[in-house]
This record gives sequence, C-alpha cells and structure tokens, in this order.
Amino acid sequence: MSSSEAVAAPEPGSLFLSEIREQPQALRRLLEHEKEFAHVAAVARDRGASLVRMVGHGSSDNAASYGVYAFGLLSPWTALRDSIALTVYYDRVFDMSGSTVLGLSQSGQTPDVLEYVRRARQHGAFTVAVTNDPSSELAEVAEAVLPLAAGSERAVAATKTYLNQVAALALLAAHVAGDGARVADGIRSVADQLESELPALEEQAQALALPFQYVGRMFVIGRGSEFATAREIALKLLETCRTAAWPLTATDLAHGPVAVLDPLFPVWTIASRDETLPAVVEAVARVREFGATIVAGGDAASAFAAEYTLPVPEPTLPLLSPLLSVVPGQLFASALARAKGLDPDRPHGLAKITLAR
Amino acid sequence: MSSSEAVAAPEPGSLFLSEIREQPQALRRLLEHEKEFAHVAAVARDRGASLVRMVGHGSSDNAASYGVYAFGLLSPWTALRDSIALTVYYDRVFDMSGSTVLGLSQSGQTPDVLEYVRRARQHGAFTVAVTNDPSSELAEVAEAVLPLAAGSERAVAATKTYLNQVAALALLAAHVAGDGARVADGIRSVADQLESELPALEEQAQALALPFQYVGRMFVIGRGSEFATAREIALKLLETCRTAAWPLTATDLAHGPVAVLDPLFPVWTIASRDETLPAVVEAVARVREFGATIVAGGDAASAFAAEYTLPVPEPTLPLLSPLLSVVPGQLFASALARAKGLDPDRPHGLAKITLAR
Repeated sequence: MSSSEAVAAPEPGSLFLSEIREQPQALRRLLEHEKEFAHVAAVARDRGASLVRMVGHGSSDNAASYGVYAFGLLSPWTALRDSIALTVYYDRVFDMSGSTVLGLSQSGQTPDVLEYVRRARQHGAFTVAVTNDPSSELAEVAEAVLPLAAGSERAVAATKTYLNQVAALALLAAHVAGDGARVADGIRSVADQLESELPALEEQAQALALPFQYVGRMFVIGRGSEFATAREIALKLLETCRTAAWPLTATDLAHGPVAVLDPLFPVWTIASRDETLPAVVEAVARVREFGATIVAGGDAASAFAAEYTLPVPEPTLPLLSPLLSVVPGQLFASALARAKGLDPDRPHGLAKITLAR
Repeated sequence: MSSSEAVAAPEPGSLFLSEIREQPQALRRLLEHEKEFAHVAAVARDRGASLVRMVGHGSSDNAASYGVYAFGLLSPWTALRDSIALTVYYDRVFDMSGSTVLGLSQSGQTPDVLEYVRRARQHGAFTVAVTNDPSSELAEVAEAVLPLAAGSERAVAATKTYLNQVAALALLAAHVAGDGARVADGIRSVADQLESELPALEEQAQALALPFQYVGRMFVIGRGSEFATAREIALKLLETCRTAAWPLTATDLAHGPVAVLDPLFPVWTIASRDETLPAVVEAVARVREFGATIVAGGDAASAFAAEYTLPVPEPTLPLLSPLLSVVPGQLFASALARAKGLDPDRPHGLAKITLAR
C-alpha cells in the first residue's frame, strides 16, 4: 500500500452505510453468545431480581424503550428506564436487592452509567453490563457481562450496536421466561430477512432523500414496542442530517403536538402488525387532517394511504419487528445526509464516545 | 347583561392567561385536601404497595416525570411512568399486588388511562385517581381519589392542573415518608412567592415574544426534577404557538441532538439550584459552541451568560423548584401565541378532553 493510499480518508458516510449493511452478520454473532444470556437470566431468576432497571443514553436509552416491551411481552417482570440522576447526582440510596440492573453502553465508558452501576451493585442489585466492549470499565464494574458482539463500530452514529442491543434485550427477556430458543430462532430469521431485503431497502430510502432535503422539522411516530424505533430514527436524523425530527407515541401526538403540523412538517409513521396498529392508523388519520406528508414504514406500511412507503418483511415473531422497521430509517438518514453534503460518519460536534454528564 | 354581551367570545388567550394567574390560589386549594393525601399514603404503606406506577398523557405524563423525582427524593420508593400499551393494548396480565397506581387525568375521562386503572385494580394494585373531577369515571374506577382542586380549567392547554399535579405528587411522596407537613409548608410558600412575582414574570415573558415570533425549532433543557418542566414548556409551545419545541435532559443533548443546533435554533435552559446544576451548566457551554441563542429560566438562571434570562425565586425546598420554573414558560407561550395571532385558549385541532387511543 502506498503512503498516499494509507492516509486517504474514507468516502463520507461509507462507515455508517457499511455498518448498516453489516447488521445481519452482527445479529448472528450475538446469537453465538446465547449461553451467556441463559446464564444471566438464570442468576436473575435465582436471586428474585425481577425489577429490571435499565440505564443508558442516546441509542442505548432508545433500546431500553424496547426493553420495557421485551420484558413486558415475554416475561412477568417489569422493566423500566431508571433515573440515573437520582442515584448519581442526587446521591440517593435505594435498596436494590430485588432489582436486575442492565447498564447499556456501546463503549462501556459512559461515565454516569458506570457510576450508576457501581452504586446499584453496592446496594444489592444484580448488575449486568450490556456492552460492545467486554473488556471495558463498565464490564469490570458489573457482576456479569452480556457482549453485544456487533464488531467494532466506527461511525459516530450507532446502527449495528443499537440493533444488537434490541436483540439482546429480547433474548434476555425470553430466557427469563424459559423461551430463549424460540426468540433466538426468530432473531436468526430476521437476520436472513434483512440480508435479502437490504438492497431493495437501500434503493427505496435513496429515492426519499431528494424530496426531504429541505425539510426542517419532522415527527416520527411509533407505539408500543415500536416507540423505541421512532426514538432511534429521530435520533439518527438529528445527529446525521441536522433535521429536527422528534419521536412521539401515536397517542401522545393527539395530546397536543398534533397542533404544530402543517404541509411542511412530514410525519414518519411506523406501522407494524401488532395490537397497537389501530392506534397508529387512528393517528395517521389525524395527521392527514393537518395536511402533513406521511411516510409509512414497518411491516404494515400498507395499512393506510401514504405519500411514501418503506415496507419491511413481517418477522416470524411480531415482537421482533423493531429489528426490521428501524433499518429504512437508518438508510434514509444515510442517504439524506449525503444528499445534504454532510458526513454521517463524523457529525459536526459529536464524538464516538460521549463523556458528558 | 344584554344578549350581545352574553354571546361575546372572550378575547383570545384570556382564559389561558387567567388560569396561569390563578395558580397560587389553585395550589392553596390543593392544600386544603392534605388529609386525603395522608390517608392515601397510609393505605399504600399498609399494603406494602411501594412500586408506584404512574399513567397519563400529555401534561399529566409530564407531571409523572416529576413524580419519579418526588418519590425518589422524598421516599425510599421507586416511581415509574408505566407503559399503558402493555396492559391495555397487548392485554398482558401482571401481578400488581405490590404496586400503587396513580392514574393522572385532569378530566378523569382519558380512555386508556381509565382502562389501565380498571385492569390494574383487578390485578391487585392499590389504585388512585389523581383528577380535577372527583366525580369522573376515573374516580369511580379507582379505589381512592386525590382531587386536584385546581378549579374548572377551560383553556385547552393545561396550566393550573399541571401545577397542581406536580404539587400533588410531591405531597403524596412526602406523606409516604412521613414528611407531609414540611412539604405542605413548602408548597404554601411557593404559592406566596408566585403570587408576588407573577406581574414581573409576565412582563419578562412578554419582552421575549417579539424576537421569537419566527423561531421554528427550539430545545428545552432540564435535568433531574426539572426534566418535567422542560417537557411541559415544550408541550405548551407546541400546542399553543405551533413552535416545534422539544425537551431533552442536559445529558441527552450531548448524545446526538446537539448536532442539529445552529444560530436559528434557540435553547431554553432550566437551571435550578440543585445537584444537577453542574450538568446543566456544562450543557449550556456545549450549546454555545454551536452559536445557538440561550434563554435561561429557573432560580439559578444567572449561573451562566444567556441572551435572555427569566429568573424565578428560590423555593424553601429545592425539590419544589418545578412549581416555579414552569411559569415563565407558560407566560412565554401565552405571549408568543398572541404575538403570532393564535388563540392559546383553543389551539387549532385540539379539544379539552382528548379521547384518542
């Protein structure tokens, strides 16, 4: 390799796009660690640590929104996105002996997640690091580690580590309920579906980039397990495209925010074939009254009329639809950032590891 | 009264503004019900119902964000904003015998909050309606009622019922911890402080309306107990001013969304004198690097340089600062809506009672 080749910067956005494309393999790598998930679930059960407290920021916190539904739908346990501030800043001490703590951090270095896990362990919680770096400080601080096994993620905006966090939460919840094999099979099927659909999804997302170049404000709407997807797609658009995109549940939309809509304010809707679909369809009708452009994503994207449709395959388990429905959003962010002349690998003002408190 | 006077519509925004002004009295009316709060806390303690599940939409859900901190700071109990969808749409059954459920609804008619409370009660939860209408269906469905006692609220956008929900959650958490009298005194002091400051706050908010008329996108930042305030101010701006304002914690800002900022994207920051202030000050420095205009609200508004400052008095108990720091946001929404020719009493497309699922 010549020295000029060695220093050549990769094409803007090439890391982000290649990591999106790598997601089927990343999911398969996660499944190689199924035994560790079974073990952590068994320990949590034995200790009666049945209140699941999840902590994380950014994409990790979005994955935690999914965790609420993974545990709620698969197990009898309650999972919550816990307040980091109460423990770390307000210095409150709680008896956590009945809790499993999941510290979610791609890098395993997020300072206040680390500190939360350290204190939770001191106060009796069963602490688990869910991280892409099993040799990180977070992994040392926690009693157990669940590796994300997504492979090194170099683009600043998370993609494959988000997907593997979502899959990891489904797998852990399934093992808690003694249902690990079925969900692992479901994740394996999703990896296959995603692999065969990616080329078509890339083309569809690309076609959407041009008309959205000058969009300043967007909503992204999901309900139930797909609220996590709405949060993650909005975050991708914020950080890579500088588009002010905001996530809402279909119901929250009606409780005020709908008033801001107009024809220049498009709404991305995630419609998946589950029990929340009627609420999403109802929200779409409300959006239409305000004249807003509708983008429909998800495996039930054809459940209503939309200006743009980005359908994904239906997974074998409805619970796993967020693993598929987020991908058109990632690909759209990739295409839109490039159309705007931005580099989604290195968004202005962001670093891969956020040390902010 | 002549018939022409009888049918004259009130001046646009007059209901909204008069209800903001009425908040000191509304808080005092709530305090007349202290015994009911003491009673509900005693029942919850006796039943060991120490996991507090809060459900609500819109402003009620924003108040629930405060409830996480009210219980977390005043009591040893954990409070969470529970998923309504799991219980109501996905039809999941959980053993709720260790839970206190707080159904938050101004009208007491929100359909899925009603349905959640009904089912939670069937599954063993101690269910409490926190509502402005103690004769509502929600009050009938729940075992106990805590009246908000805010008086009839006629503007579509909530103000005094939000404030009384926040105060109600503080009061209930305090009674759980046997600390009711101190917090009731604190709320009484806040009512007095607010009453004497309101005229000055109105003037300051009015002065901010003119330069913000053409702002399309805003962030509102709070941390800890003030995240609820950030959510509520953003919601007021969305629903009454059609300004796309979005709430973030100071930390979440750094995990991606900061990348969207520019000089046309102002940031409203709530700075209160508590343990989270350093995180807010750090976030402000980050915002400044992007050239965004900063509005500083809260009792520590002078902790950093800002283009606009909306200080409020320091409450006797730091935990109660959200009762004060939200008011400049309400008043700003009132002034900005009028400057834009909008009617904050009746925002386009919204009704006082939202029946959406």
